[in-house]
Amino acid sequence: MMSDVIKEIANAVGEENISWELADLYVYGGDASIHHSMPDVVVRPRGVEDVQVVIKIAYERNLPVTVRGSGTSLSGNAVPMRGGIVLDMKSMNRIKEINTRDMYAVVEPGVINDDLNAMLAEQGFFFPPTPASGKVATIGGMIGNNASGMRAGKYGATRDALLQVKVVLPNGDLATFGTKNLKNSSGYHLEKLFVGSEGTLGVIVEATIKIAPLPSKRGVILASYSSVYDAGRAVGDILHNRYLPSAIEIMDSVCIRAVNTAMGVGLPECDAILLVEVDGREESVQRDAMEIAEICRRNGAIDVKFTVDKNEMEKLWKGRRGVLPSLSRLEGGIVSTSLADDMNVPLSKIPEAIKRFQDVARKYGIIVGTYGHAGTGNLHTKVLFNPARKENWEKIRRAMAEIYGAVHELGGTTSGEHGIGISKAPFFVEEKRGTGTIEIMKIIKNALDRKGIMNPGKLCWAPEDFVMATRLRYPVDKNNFEEEMSNEEG
Amino acid sequence: MMSDVIKEIANAVGEENISWELADLYVYGGDASIHHSMPDVVVRPRGVEDVQVVIKIAYERNLPVTVRGSGTSLSGNAVPMRGGIVLDMKSMNRIKEINTRDMYAVVEPGVINDDLNAMLAEQGFFFPPTPASGKVATIGGMIGNNASGMRAGKYGATRDALLQVKVVLPNGDLATFGTKNLKNSSGYHLEKLFVGSEGTLGVIVEATIKIAPLPSKRGVILASYSSVYDAGRAVGDILHNRYLPSAIEIMDSVCIRAVNTAMGVGLPECDAILLVEVDGREESVQRDAMEIAEICRRNGAIDVKFTVDKNEMEKLWKGRRGVLPSLSRLEGGIVSTSLADDMNVPLSKIPEAIKRFQDVARKYGIIVGTYGHAGTGNLHTKVLFNPARKENWEKIRRAMAEIYGAVHELGGTTSGEHGIGISKAPFFVEEKRGTGTIEIMKIIKNALDRKGIMNPGKLCWAPEDFVMATRLRYPVDKNNFEEEMSNEEG
Repeated sequence: MMSDVIKEIANAVGEENISWELADLYVYGGDASIHHSMPDVVVRPRGVEDVQVVIKIAYERNLPVTVRGSGTSLSGNAVPMRGGIVLDMKSMNRIKEINTRDMYAVVEPGVINDDLNAMLAEQGFFFPPTPASGKVATIGGMIGNNASGMRAGKYGATRDALLQVKVVLPNGDLATFGTKNLKNSSGYHLEKLFVGSEGTLGVIVEATIKIAPLPSKRGVILASYSSVYDAGRAVGDILHNRYLPSAIEIMDSVCIRAVNTAMGVGLPECDAILLVEVDGREESVQRDAMEIAEICRRNGAIDVKFTVDKNEMEKLWKGRRGVLPSLSRLEGGIVSTSLADDMNVPLSKIPEAIKRFQDVARKYGIIVGTYGHAGTGNLHTKVLFNPARKENWEKIRRAMAEIYGAVHELGGTTSGEHGIGISKAPFFVEEKRGTGTIEIMKIIKNALDRKGIMNPGKLCWAPEDFVMATRLRYPVDKNNFEEEMSNEEG
Repeated sequence: MMSDVIKEIANAVGEENISWELADLYVYGGDASIHHSMPDVVVRPRGVEDVQVVIKIAYERNLPVTVRGSGTSLSGNAVPMRGGIVLDMKSMNRIKEINTRDMYAVVEPGVINDDLNAMLAEQGFFFPPTPASGKVATIGGMIGNNASGMRAGKYGATRDALLQVKVVLPNGDLATFGTKNLKNSSGYHLEKLFVGSEGTLGVIVEATIKIAPLPSKRGVILASYSSVYDAGRAVGDILHNRYLPSAIEIMDSVCIRAVNTAMGVGLPECDAILLVEVDGREESVQRDAMEIAEICRRNGAIDVKFTVDKNEMEKLWKGRRGVLPSLSRLEGGIVSTSLADDMNVPLSKIPEAIKRFQDVARKYGIIVGTYGHAGTGNLHTKVLFNPARKENWEKIRRAMAEIYGAVHELGGTTSGEHGIGISKAPFFVEEKRGTGTIEIMKIIKNALDRKGIMNPGKLCWAPEDFVMATRLRYPVDKNNFEEEMSNEEG
């Protein structure tokens, strides 16, 4: 990028709010995915006007803009594939209004999910989407890829909670879509179009989100199984018997072993566990729990425990949240990758999906750990392998294609909550082939972002040969590593 | 329309499935609103192929197409403003799949809401959106204007329930948006774009909708108030105290009198009543009801009753559903019009909104009856007047402008669930002024429906002088009536 553009941006937003130092560019070139590609400049807007002025400069000069929250994306959504400007929204982190009478909160995009929930809890409310990364995930990022987490089955995803957004459009204009009302049928629901759009249609600068009353009681059932398929069947049976737990989480033996090893949580070592959270009034929590425990047993549970103790529950959830970081510590040299990690399948297909993933793992001699939000059919499948061995990559690519092939055959979809980004782009395009989805997405994208500057190279705009086209953060081998590093300068 | 086009359509779909008889054209020229405009031909497609062939003919010849379910729109959504083709979707009424294991139903657009619910109830499930017109309302129409009814506060609107749609696009192509999964973050959520689009973007030919387990128990609290403002305050207090009833309905004295007179329901004659439905397990229904009753009393209720008896509950809901038809029988010569009838306001603004509507009524010497889904801030305000007196119309127009002015000042929105159609178009455009909404709606509409054939003249495309531009069903006076009738031939 020409230095006069950087100067122009610096003049507009203040030099202290931008950076083009190599260390910064390197850090902002990655997120929690395997992908990496450095921007030319990082801007930390202080408010709407800063965003508008930067987008106007980008629009005039055809510069790519990638919007970023805390960079927790596992699919590369926040990686600036084409360089250009990264907008780091974390400084715009004011909670502007909490209105428990009208049941909404107004926040800037950089507000952290858990910070908002801490403030809401003081007034007896919560924001239902619960990403495992809630300690750092921003609301803006959550809107960008329709984050949801474990309570979506009962309370909905971010998409359902979003009432109104203020957006800086790709030409720099400021727009407001939706209303602060709990219901509306006033024209096209444009606010929902921005949910899951992964920063490709504009920059979210403010959001009004629906909040819900905290249940007076929560309890957690821990059910152990000697077969992951039994656990999968229990999930379907709980819902089919018309219980609506606030969460149903599954963890297979690989994940159990990983968190026990890394964190010493002491989960029962078995083929699979279910964590079922029920909420509501104390008496209905107790009765629901009793009856759900019975369903778990009927489906072959070897042990069932129930707790309403806050510390015990937190210990279990800590174990659940710790799966992702723990997996990389399972065996030396092997790391967990988020390559085929967020598929959603119909509830009745959970047992078969898990079986087919394990068949693929066996076929390729790799380790696949599966856990996730079973209550909505959202499975997280981590592929563990040694990335330093070049031959592993081709194997993994074939394994991924087979895993997603199985997901699509079972009526599943490529992403349940992480979004498509780069990693999942080819499988997303494959899933949507012949449906008209890609064609209409392109029509809408071209109509709103005529110059194609917003987060280019993602979703159906990702390069076909996605692994090779991106600059890998993991060195494939020594030679490759140096090659990659030299690419970084390019 | 040239007779060769009609012949072409007849050849394609079968002569028995189209009509251009004057009586049919007259009937299909109206819906439940005050508007009327005759189509040139009515087509009743038997399946997707019929819809595609008709749309392709319309696309080639630039003919307007208006899609119609049961014609229950109160805003003119189904009135063919520019003539052309009406597609009556009621023959496409197959329930294609009910899958309680994966918690969805797949239906054709002509399926009637109550028919679907009757089938679902046999398996212990329901489709949560509950329009008062559920006996006749079609799922396709409900998607078209994001219908919701009384249970939306707890269970969401049609928008929240829609998982997947098959759509015939304005060029005749068939597309499938969304998936049958309970959660997804796979690209733009295009399925949601069709919710509330009022037939302006394509023809819905199949929908997959999320279903929910029927609660094991329901109960209804009936609270009577000597002041409608107290009732409004009680609504806010129930929710602010973190109860989540499945419905909170309000009816003012005009509405109570109307249903008692017309239907003999025997509701307490007072300034306002609340009907609060609680659902869930028997023990929590009882306790919630006790505590909510106490909140009702604290807010000035003069009497509070509670029932779990099915017949008693059905009698109360019958009275509630009967408000709309009953209002026209309140006084001779006076009819109820759905002109300013479906606003949504923030919960805390309900008392002030009702007060301001009554101020307007007093100022213009008209009767305004208010009822509706108070639990989501969705008020139905019926303006009662004698349409045969020409001077009334100008008065009503001014009153409407003042009512919607108040709604927008209070942070409310023009439509909560009926959609914009023709009646509410100028107020919708006014509400969205300066937000960018209209501009982006037009960009998307132009991108998807380049020839502008889908339901023209609605939403922000309605003619500015909406009352005069449409052909009124109500004769304004004898001379006007004849003039209108001659227009019908034009």
